[in-house]
Amino acid sequence: MRESEFLQTLHFNSLRLEDGSVVNMSLPIVLAIDDAQKNRVGSSTSVALVDEKDDLVAILSDIEIYKHNKEERIARTWGTTAPGLPYAEETITGAGNWLIGGDLEVSLSPAQLRDEFERRNADAVFAFQLRNPVHNGHALLMTDTRRCLLEMGYKNPVLLLHPLGGYTKADDVPLSWRMRQHEKVLEDGVLDPETTVVSIFPSPMHYAGPTEVQWHAKARINAGANFYIVGRDPAGMSHPIEKRDLYDADHGKKVLSMAPGLERLNILPFKVAAYDKTQSKMAFFDPSRAQDFLFISGTKMRTLAKNRENPPDGFMCPGGWKVLVEYYDSLAPAQNGRLPEPVPA
Amino acid sequence: MRESEFLQTLHFNSLRLEDGSVVNMSLPIVLAIDDAQKNRVGSSTSVALVDEKDDLVAILSDIEIYKHNKEERIARTWGTTAPGLPYAEETITGAGNWLIGGDLEVSLSPAQLRDEFERRNADAVFAFQLRNPVHNGHALLMTDTRRCLLEMGYKNPVLLLHPLGGYTKADDVPLSWRMRQHEKVLEDGVLDPETTVVSIFPSPMHYAGPTEVQWHAKARINAGANFYIVGRDPAGMSHPIEKRDLYDADHGKKVLSMAPGLERLNILPFKVAAYDKTQSKMAFFDPSRAQDFLFISGTKMRTLAKNRENPPDGFMCPGGWKVLVEYYDSLAPAQNGRLPEPVPA
Repeated sequence: MRESEFLQTLHFNSLRLEDGSVVNMSLPIVLAIDDAQKNRVGSSTSVALVDEKDDLVAILSDIEIYKHNKEERIARTWGTTAPGLPYAEETITGAGNWLIGGDLEVSLSPAQLRDEFERRNADAVFAFQLRNPVHNGHALLMTDTRRCLLEMGYKNPVLLLHPLGGYTKADDVPLSWRMRQHEKVLEDGVLDPETTVVSIFPSPMHYAGPTEVQWHAKARINAGANFYIVGRDPAGMSHPIEKRDLYDADHGKKVLSMAPGLERLNILPFKVAAYDKTQSKMAFFDPSRAQDFLFISGTKMRTLAKNRENPPDGFMCPGGWKVLVEYYDSLAPAQNGRLPEPVPA
Repeated sequence: MRESEFLQTLHFNSLRLEDGSVVNMSLPIVLAIDDAQKNRVGSSTSVALVDEKDDLVAILSDIEIYKHNKEERIARTWGTTAPGLPYAEETITGAGNWLIGGDLEVSLSPAQLRDEFERRNADAVFAFQLRNPVHNGHALLMTDTRRCLLEMGYKNPVLLLHPLGGYTKADDVPLSWRMRQHEKVLEDGVLDPETTVVSIFPSPMHYAGPTEVQWHAKARINAGANFYIVGRDPAGMSHPIEKRDLYDADHGKKVLSMAPGLERLNILPFKVAAYDKTQSKMAFFDPSRAQDFLFISGTKMRTLAKNRENPPDGFMCPGGWKVLVEYYDSLAPAQNGRLPEPVPA
């Protein structure tokens, strides 16, 4: 991003294009450089971007270098500057004091996804953002969404299962293991491969709540989605230093529904699913018989998998659960006397 | 503001109206209440707003009470949460944990100003935001702006001299004294009363830089202005705890030029005036003969007035300077053995 785009993102969560139209943009996509790198760029008007192996990734041309005010960026993105914001500490706090922007060739993958939906004759695409293993409650929600879209008159609604592939905090399950788990969920028929497209969303997780959910939704519009499933407290987390959630659980949905440039997105509210003890399966929570339901949090799920215990029958397909247990096994060589398995590619 | 307006202000710096149009709104206009007040409101659907003397000011109807997340409000408004933000400490930090919004009868004063400009047959109105005494550099800028507008073909450009009348930090000169000073500036003919309308802008000073300057400009559009003079680092201040300016000096102007809902405002850049020693008057700074110019900062001006010293001839009209000296005299009874004069009404 150039400075004008960076400022519009921080202040307006949107960008005005040359034709006067407004697109939503709530997270800055910027590249930080330090003083030494800035000096090396000198008066060049373009720079090469390379990966860790020094292979050329892209050319940034007609460049512009401007100040990286990290405090302001963090405050305006997260609504707090408290220490302990995972992405801020991973990527911003230690980054250089300058940002470099310019003209960059865009990646083609959102266009490839749109082509795939066209090939499948999808007349509605509903996107599900996730950074966790899929349990049967998620699957129920996705299946039920398809049912609703069919009832609304769509002939062929297709699910975009779009796991986040960039940075996640240490206690989240890494992408490669999640992809193996998602594969099992499709193999076991919990989700229908015929009406599901799985693709990686190559974005880092900011945990920036109402600000980030706009980016999550906007990126999926670009990839061809016109329905977006949004839950309670999307992209939220606990406050890093206070005993409370960082964001109001309803603000994500509210902000998304009002966000400039997202008018054509249909937002589908996330129904709450829980384990129904009377049916031994995940079902939509019915408050009139609350005592029949068991809520299994992410923390609880991780603890069970770490201890090689099984969740109640019907919580997750057995093949998917096995992947989770293997993942935690791989983390604890000292406890079980084995060497960690390599992370699958 | 209701919660939906509060969220749009914090995230988008703009509000979408029912007809789909977008107006700029960068600062929340909210009323905080504490737990006891919330309990007293109970299930009422409207409340009376009273002043310090318990006189009725307005009725807020169809009310809505929602959480006041002060940290998030401060971070998204100022781009920092550092202690020492004057308005945040004055009004937010100690305020209640709830906000109350609803339908409020609007004040008529911006409409009255528009009527006044019509009565004067103004074909251009240029606004000057100020919270300081007017020196001859300011006056030069305003006079020169009028000259430019005449050159552009306008027949009767009128200046809206619009001193801020709400909260200001302790070292700023209070409104009542500034109004006396502005009166002298008009009496002495430094500004032309024929083409100047003086009115109080009843807003508290947030010192929120690029966020606040949008509010300053938008409010003046509402009052009939179509040209807005913006300087370096508008509504800026020093970082409360670090040795730097809180905002980039150019960001205010840049953000203003891109702000949603402010498309029809013409932004006039603030030319820098300084004391020209060769002419013994304030003149536009000419970098080719920088050594001829003297910059007299606000701090320097206050120090001179406090010490009853005179600034160089031509810096401010003598009548206006006298008001400043009187103000500082009134603050220091112990030093001059006199009682403080009452602040003029």
